[in-house]
Amino acid sequence: MSLAYRTKRSVVGDIVWLIAWVTAAYGQSSTDTLGVGPWTYETFERGTRIRVSVVTKGLSHPWSMAFLPGGDVLITERPGRLRLLHDGKLVPEPIQGLQGLAIDQLFDIALHPDFGKNHFVYLTYIKKGSRPDGSKGYWATTALARGRFDGRALTDVADIFVADAWQPLQGGDGSRVVFSPDGKLFFASSHRRNEKLPQDPNSDVGKILRLNDDGSIPKDNPFVGQPGHKPEVFSLGHRTILGLTIHPVTGQLWETENGPQGGDEVNIIRAGRNYGWPLVTYGRDYDGKKVSPTPWREDMEAPELFWVPSITTSGMTFYTADKIPAWKGNLLVGSMTVGRIPRTGHIERIVFNENGEQRRESLLTDLKQRIRDIRQGPDGLLYLITDENQAAMLRIEPAP
Amino acid sequence: MSLAYRTKRSVVGDIVWLIAWVTAAYGQSSTDTLGVGPWTYETFERGTRIRVSVVTKGLSHPWSMAFLPGGDVLITERPGRLRLLHDGKLVPEPIQGLQGLAIDQLFDIALHPDFGKNHFVYLTYIKKGSRPDGSKGYWATTALARGRFDGRALTDVADIFVADAWQPLQGGDGSRVVFSPDGKLFFASSHRRNEKLPQDPNSDVGKILRLNDDGSIPKDNPFVGQPGHKPEVFSLGHRTILGLTIHPVTGQLWETENGPQGGDEVNIIRAGRNYGWPLVTYGRDYDGKKVSPTPWREDMEAPELFWVPSITTSGMTFYTADKIPAWKGNLLVGSMTVGRIPRTGHIERIVFNENGEQRRESLLTDLKQRIRDIRQGPDGLLYLITDENQAAMLRIEPAP
Repeated sequence: MSLAYRTKRSVVGDIVWLIAWVTAAYGQSSTDTLGVGPWTYETFERGTRIRVSVVTKGLSHPWSMAFLPGGDVLITERPGRLRLLHDGKLVPEPIQGLQGLAIDQLFDIALHPDFGKNHFVYLTYIKKGSRPDGSKGYWATTALARGRFDGRALTDVADIFVADAWQPLQGGDGSRVVFSPDGKLFFASSHRRNEKLPQDPNSDVGKILRLNDDGSIPKDNPFVGQPGHKPEVFSLGHRTILGLTIHPVTGQLWETENGPQGGDEVNIIRAGRNYGWPLVTYGRDYDGKKVSPTPWREDMEAPELFWVPSITTSGMTFYTADKIPAWKGNLLVGSMTVGRIPRTGHIERIVFNENGEQRRESLLTDLKQRIRDIRQGPDGLLYLITDENQAAMLRIEPAP
Repeated sequence: MSLAYRTKRSVVGDIVWLIAWVTAAYGQSSTDTLGVGPWTYETFERGTRIRVSVVTKGLSHPWSMAFLPGGDVLITERPGRLRLLHDGKLVPEPIQGLQGLAIDQLFDIALHPDFGKNHFVYLTYIKKGSRPDGSKGYWATTALARGRFDGRALTDVADIFVADAWQPLQGGDGSRVVFSPDGKLFFASSHRRNEKLPQDPNSDVGKILRLNDDGSIPKDNPFVGQPGHKPEVFSLGHRTILGLTIHPVTGQLWETENGPQGGDEVNIIRAGRNYGWPLVTYGRDYDGKKVSPTPWREDMEAPELFWVPSITTSGMTFYTADKIPAWKGNLLVGSMTVGRIPRTGHIERIVFNENGEQRRESLLTDLKQRIRDIRQGPDGLLYLITDENQAAMLRIEPAP
């Protein structure tokens, strides 16, 4: 696939892509650019003011958070560390127990719905491996691991599903895991910069997979028993998946997906559907070419929301608590930055009415931080993490 | 049409729309929010720094600029005033001569290509009139007037084309005029909030018109001689047209058009083509409804560039001079603001390569000004005007 990829693209296009990617991923200040806070914002609805304050600094490229029953928080860091916020303070030493996983990049974390009983923690990551022919070079896939967390240590850590998504290229590799109300889990496997496999139902590249909580495949998955189709596939045609969440009313799976220069999407994921990448998209590639001649095809799903140009959508959550009443039912989407100027990472707040999207509001733009994830805490406040070398976890609460 | 419009929309939708519109148009501080400057910016290309400085304040809702041969500048103000910047200073008294035009809102200004000989100045505006049935209420259309400017006074001012676009509703009414390299002029007539007529080739609502320099209709227009088609129509299916410019290499007409909440467009305008409003658009209406079920139809033109969500595109120009070498060939588009928070008016700089759009850069965002128009001056620098109660004309030059 590497060769096929190379021959389809100009070298210039590749270089432009790589510069954009490296800039986005690594081109950040090695110093703390955030300041001490707190910061207060007036928001769209008159009278609704929020205060944003630092929960902790000392993180580096955190990716996801999981709130534990006692108030502690587990935080993943992309370089492969699992951190613990204990009694409101970041424990200096990472949690041990991941060393058997061959982690290239660590992404999402989720607790089992019965975590209080079984202590199961789920992690998604890019798993390094050896090339089938024994040659040197990058070779990795997306994997889902499970372990038990007792409040201090992670034990019994093992892969429960390794996606059939081995690829020689880095990039395009985000992944999330989220539990559905029916107890199944959705596990996202991004496009890995492969231009064909997201449309191939016999590959896990560019797919959302549906699994049982032990990694086995549910018998009611949409493609079970269909020749040439992987039974774990729930939906296809995805690019870089950086957010998954369950709608609090409908129970449907919502997904954020990065386009290239344009075409960041929020999709509502339905069983067996094709979300189009790379056949239809609103975006242009980094070399300026339109990715698809038309933005829409009748046999493929159009996004529920999209952004042109891209804001680099990341993690998202629906706000369901009462602490900020005007925000109830809103979707909060993290935004990161592509390109050196301007740094416009922020939170995008989307307000719905009975017809659909009513309006969007950009918040925290002046902080100039890449926002990797945003979650609602058990206290009804919102928590977010920045994707920076010197990163932070922040809390949003009503301003006093 | 008013009744038809009302029955198709909910009252709530109308109210939401009006609030958004009034906020955008009038919801501004009555004080000067700009500061004194100058402001310096680093831009995407390393080593390219620009300095933005105030040419003049003392304007109120300026709409367009025309650079006179001797270095003076004519500036329109939406409330119906024509101002003169003489020897770099704003003349306090507006230029007389427009009193016969029944101006409701004054928009664009352009000089005849042979202005040095014939002193012809063209103005677009919303012209108030009496309702055909003699009843009271708003009744207006889009018109094109021409006069002679001798350096101090405007004389012989008269309409040369009054569009067949009489409507009872205010809003959706921008207009531009630009000369083509062949000596014809393009004159834009916006949708006027009418939902049917932009698709009716027998109306001037939601159209770009092509005229001779005396307001007569060229015989080579695309619909000349076709029954049920106005001979002045050059293209149809337009919403609010706030920018027209000629591409410096291809000679094609480029247009900016505002979508509702999403779907601001830059279109390349071709003779006889349909640009889709309101049948196809990327945007949602202010009530949250999708305007069209699909964003694209084979028989209609897709935009060359678009924005979702909207940035409220306004005037634009291609940069063709040498003073800022890295910007040569770039398209500069003004952005205004819809909504109370955040105020994100700015300039959007679009860089092209051989494939099309390569990237976009937002500039001057921190000034928090609505940018109504941007033009290249005869000195090779860029000039822009803000759409504020206390507005300014600004100059962009290389930073020393």
